[in-house]
Amino acid sequence: MTQITKIGEFGLIERIKKLIRTDTSVIKGSGDDCAVLKLDKNHYQLFTCDMIVQDTDFTLKDNPYLIGRKAIAVSISDIAACAGLPRYCLVALGIPKNTSVELIDKLFKGMLSLTKKYSINLVGGDISRARQLTIDVSILGIVEKKNLVLRSGSKVGDIIFVTGALGGSILGKHLTFTPRIKEARFLVENFKVNAMIDISDGLTQDLSHILKESSTGAAIYADLIPLSKQARSLNDALCMGEDFELLFTMPQDQAKRLFAKGLTNFKPIGEIRHKKYGLRLLDSQGREKIIKVKGFQHF
Amino acid sequence: MTQITKIGEFGLIERIKKLIRTDTSVIKGSGDDCAVLKLDKNHYQLFTCDMIVQDTDFTLKDNPYLIGRKAIAVSISDIAACAGLPRYCLVALGIPKNTSVELIDKLFKGMLSLTKKYSINLVGGDISRARQLTIDVSILGIVEKKNLVLRSGSKVGDIIFVTGALGGSILGKHLTFTPRIKEARFLVENFKVNAMIDISDGLTQDLSHILKESSTGAAIYADLIPLSKQARSLNDALCMGEDFELLFTMPQDQAKRLFAKGLTNFKPIGEIRHKKYGLRLLDSQGREKIIKVKGFQHF
Repeated sequence: MTQITKIGEFGLIERIKKLIRTDTSVIKGSGDDCAVLKLDKNHYQLFTCDMIVQDTDFTLKDNPYLIGRKAIAVSISDIAACAGLPRYCLVALGIPKNTSVELIDKLFKGMLSLTKKYSINLVGGDISRARQLTIDVSILGIVEKKNLVLRSGSKVGDIIFVTGALGGSILGKHLTFTPRIKEARFLVENFKVNAMIDISDGLTQDLSHILKESSTGAAIYADLIPLSKQARSLNDALCMGEDFELLFTMPQDQAKRLFAKGLTNFKPIGEIRHKKYGLRLLDSQGREKIIKVKGFQHF
Repeated sequence: MTQITKIGEFGLIERIKKLIRTDTSVIKGSGDDCAVLKLDKNHYQLFTCDMIVQDTDFTLKDNPYLIGRKAIAVSISDIAACAGLPRYCLVALGIPKNTSVELIDKLFKGMLSLTKKYSINLVGGDISRARQLTIDVSILGIVEKKNLVLRSGSKVGDIIFVTGALGGSILGKHLTFTPRIKEARFLVENFKVNAMIDISDGLTQDLSHILKESSTGAAIYADLIPLSKQARSLNDALCMGEDFELLFTMPQDQAKRLFAKGLTNFKPIGEIRHKKYGLRLLDSQGREKIIKVKGFQHF
């Protein structure tokens, strides 16, 4: 018997993926932020879920309104990473027996604050008894075929951007972040974006997903990585999870046009290089360091 | 503070439903087996999820292959209850840290045995650490507009049917049942079905959902209710959960045509009456007993 801690979360996912076959209506199955399904002539459907569990993703000391909010926000963030719009959601709840009605009320009020903001219909769900408060939110979204962005499209020479400051999210932002739907839609409606992912497990780990899916490498510049006030060091920004900013790459001509807009919420942090370059961090003296990818794994 | 055990599972669901508003693209939100969403000229999309949790819905002594199978089967059963076809699914897993890779392999092989059988694409999911093994399966399905069946359509005079024997499912059938997709499709393709639900929480409780949504009452005949070999008494068939047979109602002329086919897998058990009649059980001497609805509730 092999314990799953031996192969880790991503080892487990790779193992499961090998068992799965899908038909031609599936544009992209597991391995991106959302599944991408054929819908009509001009649109794809996006389908994603995210489960949050007590004592891993939140504690019962956190405000239940914010726990509910986070449960919805993490799934919306997956839709944002594919540049789509969320439409419908289901909420599956595992609830400990001694939970109060008031806690559940607050949980749903938090969820509904976001479903309302993003015009998402909460259309059902399921309730079970469980020892830990557990919330799985499934979201159905939509994206124009021409606007879909996956992890797999980054190209050598692309500029790499993030949508905000990174690190230290665990001190609060993980419960209050705004999913970057508006930013993603602004980008795809005005620019060509080659690859995108949301930073849920840490910058280097999520960037490595783009590099793996795109067969590319990358250089990121230590001085350019925007640190949040809560980050204790550059390392926090590189490796801590739950920032839920978008990480995306676009061709240089597009990046120039984006710079020209003078917007401050898209920060360039590096560039895509050949696969054999790997992933390296450059300091202000131009010294290169190969990055050993570290980030959050459940196992 | 009010404990949720005070208002019960269905009290909690009613409370949550009051908070929710949906737009006109939602044909049916929470309160049926699936959410029903506009799709195209001739079809609706069905969207549903079911969460199963260790020590409530299965134990770790059960065969992991059958646990995985059940996780998928319960959601397929919801699609069957709306007379649709399942198409895509996501699997969210909460896994205890000391779980073996072999257990997860078997779990997925069990899931994939059913996704293959029903031509469902498993297109993604999520993995979290949890103290109990927890599996939430979301399914997207499709149904022709003309074939959709909800809980709300039963009419006075309808004959009430079930698709198989009831009671004692906990002794094994809950892990091995066949979701009644084939039966549901046969029915809607050949007959007019007014209302349908899958029996997950017990015959009387699930029938009471049809009656509530349809504003009707019902008489069921003790002698007609098919008891499974595992049922210890009529009471087991009336009140035990997890049979996952379909319970449906159709007009008398349709019922006659169905009888004429001589099929043994559709058993008439009673008839729909006026709402004020309530829900009553009739014995072989014609004596009536008002049924106090009892079935499985998580709280």
